[in-house]
Amino acid sequence: MAGRIVIGLDAMGGDFAPSEPVRGGYMAAKENPDIDLILIGREEEIKKYLPSDLPNIRICHASEVISMEDPPALSVRRKKDSSISVGAELLKKKEISAFVSVGNTGAVVSAATLKARLLPGIERPGLAVVFPTMKGTPVIVIDVGANIDTKPTHLLQYGLMATVYCRAMWDGVDDPKVGILNIGEEEGKGISTYKEAASLLKQSGLNFVGNVEGKDIFKGVVDIVVMDGFVGNAVLKVSEGAAEAVVKLLKQEIYESSWWTKIGAILFLLPAYKRLKKKIDYSEYGGALLLGINGVCIIGHGRSNARAVRNAIMVAVKEIKRKVNDRILKELGNLKVNIGGEN
Amino acid sequence: MAGRIVIGLDAMGGDFAPSEPVRGGYMAAKENPDIDLILIGREEEIKKYLPSDLPNIRICHASEVISMEDPPALSVRRKKDSSISVGAELLKKKEISAFVSVGNTGAVVSAATLKARLLPGIERPGLAVVFPTMKGTPVIVIDVGANIDTKPTHLLQYGLMATVYCRAMWDGVDDPKVGILNIGEEEGKGISTYKEAASLLKQSGLNFVGNVEGKDIFKGVVDIVVMDGFVGNAVLKVSEGAAEAVVKLLKQEIYESSWWTKIGAILFLLPAYKRLKKKIDYSEYGGALLLGINGVCIIGHGRSNARAVRNAIMVAVKEIKRKVNDRILKELGNLKVNIGGEN
Repeated sequence: MAGRIVIGLDAMGGDFAPSEPVRGGYMAAKENPDIDLILIGREEEIKKYLPSDLPNIRICHASEVISMEDPPALSVRRKKDSSISVGAELLKKKEISAFVSVGNTGAVVSAATLKARLLPGIERPGLAVVFPTMKGTPVIVIDVGANIDTKPTHLLQYGLMATVYCRAMWDGVDDPKVGILNIGEEEGKGISTYKEAASLLKQSGLNFVGNVEGKDIFKGVVDIVVMDGFVGNAVLKVSEGAAEAVVKLLKQEIYESSWWTKIGAILFLLPAYKRLKKKIDYSEYGGALLLGINGVCIIGHGRSNARAVRNAIMVAVKEIKRKVNDRILKELGNLKVNIGGEN
Repeated sequence: MAGRIVIGLDAMGGDFAPSEPVRGGYMAAKENPDIDLILIGREEEIKKYLPSDLPNIRICHASEVISMEDPPALSVRRKKDSSISVGAELLKKKEISAFVSVGNTGAVVSAATLKARLLPGIERPGLAVVFPTMKGTPVIVIDVGANIDTKPTHLLQYGLMATVYCRAMWDGVDDPKVGILNIGEEEGKGISTYKEAASLLKQSGLNFVGNVEGKDIFKGVVDIVVMDGFVGNAVLKVSEGAAEAVVKLLKQEIYESSWWTKIGAILFLLPAYKRLKKKIDYSEYGGALLLGINGVCIIGHGRSNARAVRNAIMVAVKEIKRKVNDRILKELGNLKVNIGGEN
């Protein structure tokens, strides 16, 4: 087993568990005989959905389930035998190199932070999401809600972790541009945490380009936008909501149109629409990345289907192969500013 | 002149000034002979774009212009003869009942707050934007950036002002539902300002329904969502960006498709698309409302065309006729919690 990559998958997380996680895990394991997959959750239920046995799939029984609606921190403390708690425990013991879940985001963040702990020097984990842009290049938004008690050094560390992630994972992006969210583009505007963070980022040695407005995120003017978890969570949810609303309103318009338009839309628009949906569906990007954890942790969308789960696993595998965490630790030492205390 | 409504319009604001503001003002004045309109800005330039003289249009010369890129507070202090400063001065002197601008938002907020001042009892102005929802009903998001140093009482006051606005302006909405933005829907989550504000709103007597997530804004689950100006600005800009990106990506998909799809899209989709654009274009709603100012103040989008300017003026007229500010003052006295100190 030495040297083999072992991935732990939360089989009970998400809106379509255990069916879709199990099927997605199966896809990934079948396509990649060089990785080992541990399905974590209720054994009987997992077996029901597993198409067949594979030599590189094992089941780790966990009797409890943290639902999407459960209070995150509390349920991690109470449900010690939940798939999420057990997965985080395996990550802590280094029995798995990565934990992948499409379950309760807050619970995964809590469990991973509490058990696997943070990388030395990192004060808070950052949840990063990859968005598509109009330019065609992706953009990383960090933090979308792992931490709402945000200090300037956290924002600096988000910028660093995302920079390392870009460099390591995306070929051809050697010096990713980092922006910080703000109101307007004037320097010195905005709240004090952001001002101080901008000043740290400026001296850090990262490719910091200054303030970025919300409207610029999707334009692809930068590769990384750092913000605090409260704002970032709103940004993430509102983006999803706005995109969904536009698509729904367009559908309504077509539905309320003449039968001509309806037939036309079905005949001509459907393929373009399907490709669009694939582009804006962030499950295609493999879910959110919980950066800063001592171990790889990927959190997919609750609505993930099997394909999205498979994609999330493949992102985790790539993150392990490209040694993202080792590189974060190395780069932390190269920063030209004081990154704050230990965690 | 007694009893006539007088509106001041910033003729120099926005991306298409003075042409579009002047034309929009002309439209409004021509359609509504019962209102008086004062065009504020460079007389010679205004005259160039004014289609003809009307008995209810006057020009108030202002020699300076605050551009969209000028630093807001600073330019208001420096450019005392700018259309925005002069407009705010007229509002202060009650020579106009409302000031309408599609210019530099921050400058209008600064000028109006500094000169016309706030309603007694209101601590900070709130910039409110009306969004369309999937349900078909509109939703007010407040504050989208008038104030970034936000206290719990400010959030309470935003909820109150928006409630009064809904009741006064929208027929059939007597008891608008107020939500507060947060991460997740659990009570007690989120940062302390929001927690305290939620507690105030709960006791206020307003129809407060609790926490609302970013993704719910466009679903129409509430009529009003309160948040601080930093988050609100991000929410506003990101919504615009996401909607724009979806539309652009769809266009790209169509463009890259077969000529079949292209012809189909042009023939069948264009009318539906145009109606959609009208629905999601917030200039159709008459721009943002700067609530809490001692006088009516409407700030339209910088990209406003003549029609959007006309719509913004009509919102201002309605706000005056329906005595929104008088009603805010009255309702402040009816609140069941302490609203904080005087401004």
